[in-house]
Amino acid sequence: MLQITIIGMGLIGTSLGMALRSADERNAPLGSITLVGYDKNRRAASDARGRLAIDRVAHSLEEALQGAQLVVVAVPVQSIHEIFTEIGALLPHGAVVTDVASTKAQVMEWASQLLPTTVNFVGGHPMAGKEQSGAAAADPDLFKEAIYCLAPSPRARPEAVGLVEAMAQQVGAKIYYIDPIEHDGYVAGVSHLPFLLAAALVEVTSRGAGWKEMSVLAASGFHDVTRLASGDPEMHRDICMTNGAAMIRWIDETVGLLLDVRDQIAANQSNEIGELFARAREVREEWLTTRPRMRPGEDAFGQTGWSEVERPNLFGLRRRPPRDRRR
Amino acid sequence: MLQITIIGMGLIGTSLGMALRSADERNAPLGSITLVGYDKNRRAASDARGRLAIDRVAHSLEEALQGAQLVVVAVPVQSIHEIFTEIGALLPHGAVVTDVASTKAQVMEWASQLLPTTVNFVGGHPMAGKEQSGAAAADPDLFKEAIYCLAPSPRARPEAVGLVEAMAQQVGAKIYYIDPIEHDGYVAGVSHLPFLLAAALVEVTSRGAGWKEMSVLAASGFHDVTRLASGDPEMHRDICMTNGAAMIRWIDETVGLLLDVRDQIAANQSNEIGELFARAREVREEWLTTRPRMRPGEDAFGQTGWSEVERPNLFGLRRRPPRDRRR
Repeated sequence: MLQITIIGMGLIGTSLGMALRSADERNAPLGSITLVGYDKNRRAASDARGRLAIDRVAHSLEEALQGAQLVVVAVPVQSIHEIFTEIGALLPHGAVVTDVASTKAQVMEWASQLLPTTVNFVGGHPMAGKEQSGAAAADPDLFKEAIYCLAPSPRARPEAVGLVEAMAQQVGAKIYYIDPIEHDGYVAGVSHLPFLLAAALVEVTSRGAGWKEMSVLAASGFHDVTRLASGDPEMHRDICMTNGAAMIRWIDETVGLLLDVRDQIAANQSNEIGELFARAREVREEWLTTRPRMRPGEDAFGQTGWSEVERPNLFGLRRRPPRDRRR
Repeated sequence: MLQITIIGMGLIGTSLGMALRSADERNAPLGSITLVGYDKNRRAASDARGRLAIDRVAHSLEEALQGAQLVVVAVPVQSIHEIFTEIGALLPHGAVVTDVASTKAQVMEWASQLLPTTVNFVGGHPMAGKEQSGAAAADPDLFKEAIYCLAPSPRARPEAVGLVEAMAQQVGAKIYYIDPIEHDGYVAGVSHLPFLLAAALVEVTSRGAGWKEMSVLAASGFHDVTRLASGDPEMHRDICMTNGAAMIRWIDETVGLLLDVRDQIAANQSNEIGELFARAREVREEWLTTRPRMRPGEDAFGQTGWSEVERPNLFGLRRRPPRDRRR
């Protein structure tokens, strides 16, 4: 029986618990598990219990971590420093610790500074989310077919990495090993920049006098491009602040391009603009058609760092070969 | 029997024909109609006929316009100048002409320069679309509950305006009278700027060396924010070029905001960024909750310019009171 402790029962923590518990125990990569949940907001923890995301609510971090073999820190990125500080002395010897935050370099640094050397840290980032937050919005299918980025700390033992990998597989996600700095640059481009552009579009259109009438004309295009702007503002603020260098680089790129387009419109250079739009369509269509092929067994992940090594599982558990294991 | 001629059997022209023909004749604001379709590409016209969007294919503009009482110019905005030039001498005396282009000031100017004074021009812009183009993507429900902007030319007779209004009602759209310049500024913000940001996001993320790996990490957020970038590049290029002044103004606003955010990230001013994101969420949520209330009969359009005047219909037709007429 593997004890998993989830700290932070928000959208991701609760969804993760629901997904882990809903797996068929006979085929589950983690085998038999017991899930303990903790949230400093007691209401959140009991909501998660009500949604059957956890077997038991812990009322303190100390209680939560007693006997924990795998600890998932599912708090917003800006709270991770505080949680790492608090759990440092409470973590059982040899425990595996992972997180789910959207930025990795800063988190890896905190882990190396604040967690004892007796634990194994494996940074994690499931590429899944919703605009809604909290246990009420949780969904056991949130991670199905999603990419799950893993960034093991240099001193994490292979068995620890294997355990987090098994957890990601159990919730239906696809594992993707990635360097933390590279991760932060990439997700800033495909995830944090899109959020910023959505929020910026709402802000520039709504801050002027014409918004009341404009808002009537706004249709499905505006709806979709701004969807992310309905997301949790504090979470996105923290993501921006912990991924500042990458964000600044992407903002500069975007501003440069927009100013090029501005000059082309002013100079009546319609060819350049038409080419830009044609290229964007082509790239997006290619992205749309290649993505669905990246499903378990279709080999699109052959290059992404999965090793053939059979890793013995931690704590004497024999890990069953996951059904959709990629090579 | 009212003869309507649609010039241009693309997505909008074909969808319009399908929507007009699918209305129940007994309740239809336009009464009994016959639809003639023309496209310089004969294949497009016969595709539209195949989809039952029109009663008859015309093989020349001359044939198309013979006996036409209402002419819908549904060609891309950049082709409107050419079509207006060609149809000027062919339009029956007293005919009502409307268009469906996304920009209005330029089109109104062309209409006043190129169309004879014996016809009535009423600029139109149904706020509905799809990324896909052409007759194959046409949908008779495309205009249901959509906003249909109308900008009558100063010399259009009230009966002409009433006829275009009846057509918009017949396809299920909601009429919105608007000044052409105001229209162009507003739609640039809520429609053309969103397209540009979607295309810009695809361009900046995909032009670098990391795209191959980044594209794997791109998830539903990237998907939605970039959706519009799959739209017709030529159409969007032409929209940009015929609405240049407004586009430049919105680009400047957006660039200014992005540079503010950049500086705030660099200066670690997380409060300002959190406030921006919170405001964007609040505005969008308000927009989402107020929009669905704007349905026929719910009076949200009381201020939008509908007049109480009973307009006699053109051509001696007695127009039935539309079912969902707004006052």
